[in-house]
Amino acid sequence: MITLEEAQRILSAAEDKARQMGQPMNIAVMDAGRNLVAFHRMDGAWVASTDIAIDKAFTSAGRGLTTRKIGEMAQPGQPLFGINTTNGGRIVIFAGGIPLMRDGEVAGAIGVSGGTVDEDHEVAEAGVAAFG
Amino acid sequence: MITLEEAQRILSAAEDKARQMGQPMNIAVMDAGRNLVAFHRMDGAWVASTDIAIDKAFTSAGRGLTTRKIGEMAQPGQPLFGINTTNGGRIVIFAGGIPLMRDGEVAGAIGVSGGTVDEDHEVAEAGVAAFG
Amino acid sequence: MITLEEAQRILSAAEDKARQMGQPMNIAVMDAGRNLVAFHRMDGAWVASTDIAIDKAFTSAGRGLTTRKIGEMAQPGQPLFGINTTNGGRIVIFAGGIPLMRDGEVAGAIGVSGGTVDEDHEVAEAGVAAFG
Amino acid sequence: MITLEEAQRILSAAEDKARQMGQPMNIAVMDAGRNLVAFHRMDGAWVASTDIAIDKAFTSAGRGLTTRKIGEMAQPGQPLFGINTTNGGRIVIFAGGIPLMRDGEVAGAIGVSGGTVDEDHEVAEAGVAAFG
Repeated sequence: MITLEEAQRILSAAEDKARQMGQPMNIAVMDAGRNLVAFHRMDGAWVASTDIAIDKAFTSAGRGLTTRKIGEMAQPGQPLFGINTTNGGRIVIFAGGIPLMRDGEVAGAIGVSGGTVDEDHEVAEAGVAAFG
Repeated sequence: MITLEEAQRILSAAEDKARQMGQPMNIAVMDAGRNLVAFHRMDGAWVASTDIAIDKAFTSAGRGLTTRKIGEMAQPGQPLFGINTTNGGRIVIFAGGIPLMRDGEVAGAIGVSGGTVDEDHEVAEAGVAAFG
Repeated sequence: MITLEEAQRILSAAEDKARQMGQPMNIAVMDAGRNLVAFHRMDGAWVASTDIAIDKAFTSAGRGLTTRKIGEMAQPGQPLFGINTTNGGRIVIFAGGIPLMRDGEVAGAIGVSGGTVDEDHEVAEAGVAAFG
Repeated sequence: MITLEEAQRILSAAEDKARQMGQPMNIAVMDAGRNLVAFHRMDGAWVASTDIAIDKAFTSAGRGLTTRKIGEMAQPGQPLFGINTTNGGRIVIFAGGIPLMRDGEVAGAIGVSGGTVDEDHEVAEAGVAAFG
């Protein structure tokens, strides 16, 4: 479980990092049941990234892996090629989603979208650092 | 346009009201283009209501009416009976969604779900009062 | 078949009527195959009505009936109750869609949404009058 | 915001270009909130391209990039591989969608489909040139 207070602390840290970068982001925090806890779209962030941020969190929470790692496994010829059309098309296979771990268990995930995938991942890491 | 800061002020006022009631809520703020600006699920709020809160905001932002009013018009024999299956099934026809108006125009909407529909509507009103 | 020129003439007549009413509308023209030929959203028309206008045309083109008539048949206890969840949820059961007839055959349909259902129907009739 | 008059001017310029090419096209104009403003299917244009034209505009409006550019980033091994299954499957990753910019901001987008992707892109450019 992730409380709203924890989610807001995660969002706040991620938003600080995004502001430092000068890149407005969409940021989502999901619990282990893959249900949304909190979402913020920063002013000027792309609307196409709303859905992507939420589904990056959905992807990482459901598998306990970063979306970057899942993306490597989802390339042509790799073991999970095609996974992005499962789960009703909600699996995202590029960087920006990171699980939130507590006591060795997946407690949820953060998903970030709006910049390059490296920027998205870095902002997600700032959110993770504010957890636990 | 609704800024993230405005959305957070709206959420905060709505959450205060929900806490007074002792009823945890899902609360969403959407802009006039029906894209999500911010969403918070309070600790203990029903997960089925996540989707409903978001779509109540979607409904009110797209038509400039409360979902309570649309619900009256959507009863059997009334003019909008059946509207809830349009827009990809995202139209919600019970109370809890209210437009956010600025200068006589629809700037967005708030959607609340988690309690009775009267409680949802009352919490949404508290959010509206914090806007503008 | 409905040509783009015919569709534009239909749209133009419908828009004139909507302007007379002072009610901005979403207006769609579909062919007999239920594929969109043309769509216009007038300035200030509700975005929720975009989808509804298109699907009113979809509904009337596919059945050769006004959506008003289908709506009567879709009330509880009536023969088509529940039809609005068929066809992928694209059947609209309130007024504003009218078939476009040529030589006794359905050539397509117009769908209008944005005002009251009576206004929508009246604007659709203005479009129909400009056809054929 | 994009007015209907602006959208019609864009469509008209794009249609002129398509006629010069002898290639009937489906052409869509969307606003920044990714809601459709206007759509025209030219006589003889493929019906499968109706959806593609609309979703090319959806894609470019939501991200501020041409669908050609997004397509390059969505190849296997590239940063956005898999993006076409996000946003409910509405992201198109081949040429024909171009953002409409005003004062350095994304005001909307045009999406064209019906010919080769190079033809689609060229017709979209003719539409963009008629804007602003």
